[in-house]
Amino acid sequence: MTVLELSEVRERYLAEIERRLVASVASDELIDVAARYHLATGGKRLRALLPVWICGNLGGRSEDALDFGVGFELFHNATLVHDDLQDGDTHRRGQDVVWVRWGVPQAINVGDALFFRALSRITSAPRGASLVPAALDAMAAVICGQALEFQLQLPANDPSHLAATLASWERMAAGKTAALFAICMRAGVFAAGGDAAAEASAAAFGRHVGLLFQVQDDLLDLVGDKGRGERATDIAEGKISFPVAWAAEHGEAGRTARLLEIVRTPRGETSRAMMDEALDLLEQTGAIAATIDWIRSATAEAEANPLFGAVPGFVERILDPIRHVL
Amino acid sequence: MTVLELSEVRERYLAEIERRLVASVASDELIDVAARYHLATGGKRLRALLPVWICGNLGGRSEDALDFGVGFELFHNATLVHDDLQDGDTHRRGQDVVWVRWGVPQAINVGDALFFRALSRITSAPRGASLVPAALDAMAAVICGQALEFQLQLPANDPSHLAATLASWERMAAGKTAALFAICMRAGVFAAGGDAAAEASAAAFGRHVGLLFQVQDDLLDLVGDKGRGERATDIAEGKISFPVAWAAEHGEAGRTARLLEIVRTPRGETSRAMMDEALDLLEQTGAIAATIDWIRSATAEAEANPLFGAVPGFVERILDPIRHVL
Repeated sequence: MTVLELSEVRERYLAEIERRLVASVASDELIDVAARYHLATGGKRLRALLPVWICGNLGGRSEDALDFGVGFELFHNATLVHDDLQDGDTHRRGQDVVWVRWGVPQAINVGDALFFRALSRITSAPRGASLVPAALDAMAAVICGQALEFQLQLPANDPSHLAATLASWERMAAGKTAALFAICMRAGVFAAGGDAAAEASAAAFGRHVGLLFQVQDDLLDLVGDKGRGERATDIAEGKISFPVAWAAEHGEAGRTARLLEIVRTPRGETSRAMMDEALDLLEQTGAIAATIDWIRSATAEAEANPLFGAVPGFVERILDPIRHVL
Repeated sequence: MTVLELSEVRERYLAEIERRLVASVASDELIDVAARYHLATGGKRLRALLPVWICGNLGGRSEDALDFGVGFELFHNATLVHDDLQDGDTHRRGQDVVWVRWGVPQAINVGDALFFRALSRITSAPRGASLVPAALDAMAAVICGQALEFQLQLPANDPSHLAATLASWERMAAGKTAALFAICMRAGVFAAGGDAAAEASAAAFGRHVGLLFQVQDDLLDLVGDKGRGERATDIAEGKISFPVAWAAEHGEAGRTARLLEIVRTPRGETSRAMMDEALDLLEQTGAIAATIDWIRSATAEAEANPLFGAVPGFVERILDPIRHVL
């Protein structure tokens, strides 16, 4: 059995993945026209590739995992259509987002319909129906995580406010980001014929890697260039990232208070100077160093996992954008 | 075998339905807290009762249909949470709606999560997984119908505009309203152990009754009191109802143009006088009489259907609010 790299999986299956993505939203109805428009903005299709990659490297037929991957990718894109609306983002990769082009009510419809298209694709996979309950739990967990993310951004006097702690951050990220990685990994193992224990351990690995991915993304916003041309945009957007949660929990009270004040300043009112001040505060509280430590330790843990070899180079790839600070 | 009336089914199963509805959204997470708040605004739980009612009256175990009914009721309520946001409605049965209470982003999350809770409930039914593909198609059809409803309301110069024709009205209503009735009926037959042909004919009956329900609702807005204290509120809201579509297709050109002008006037700018003028125009074009004719003929067709006896009194109940004009 040859163990494939992600690039090889992409080369073999990406065209078929794209074909099935579009085939799931093929009608002339507005919901599908807009879904194709959104899908055409691109993306790495990582949620589609993961199950295929793992299944093949565990000795299964990669084709058996295709509809799982396509289904999770459709689900991910449904959440993006709703996210853009929820966050008030107007552009995605230089193109007007769905709510800007078709209006708010239709963007809600487009995301809603994509959820059902996603699940239809999952039921089309071999033995797909058996994975549907777990897929539904994962999907609900993703939405729950997104709800928690907004709660973390609320001022302390709001009844739905959630204090910025590491436990709340993890609860949020475990849903928003890690639950989908977990079900993607699990689907790959399921398609390869793994038993319940193997599925559970794949889900745990996926959750772990998902959290690692999120912490990496959080750190990248502070130390790298996410392509938006500036640092600390998450802070301007009011997001409670891992480093911010760490600072809130471990930082000196005065610094923490000022940091959260900046984070909770409305998006349009956060100046470049405030963003730089927040970066300094994160440095001074030790949050950046602690985040790097967390990533190093989570990486070592991932490398020790039996599934690590089934996705060769994956963890390295996740860490690549922040390699210069590790 | 005793054939039960709806009131008897309600008496036997409504408490258990309410219990399962709440049990599906039992967590302390915001998505579930808000879902319970929404569910507590009440409703007839017709989508929950239908499968149970039909299953029992066809000789099946009513309990086997409970999770289907609860799942479709949860789905219906998910669409209501999104609908209130899409339509800008602020109150439901005297209570602030979810988006007013928790904000727009969270209302999107609450509806999204309810979709997955609904489907989890459906997969919990005996042989539930087998009905999931059909349920997903029905759900996508409902969303598609809602998208069409907005398209029908757009001005003629909008690229997504859909002309007000009876065919477009039916395409919209077949999705928005009838697809859910169809899958509810089908689920009842499925739970009773009916074969594929029986399921298909139940779906067709459900679709037919769903359209009848929608035309009744459209007419009621013009001739009755929907509890909002005034007539023609659908016209003020810009909705293309069956009578409006009929007038647009069959009415004299001048009257039709004026009617559509009133319908397309923004919600806040439609005066009581304009609504009364629209009512007169619908009368003059013959649209009201044609709608009554359509309802009479669709009723006769429903009565001839083999499934009619499995839901005794249902069609009469649907027509009750407009009985005075039939």
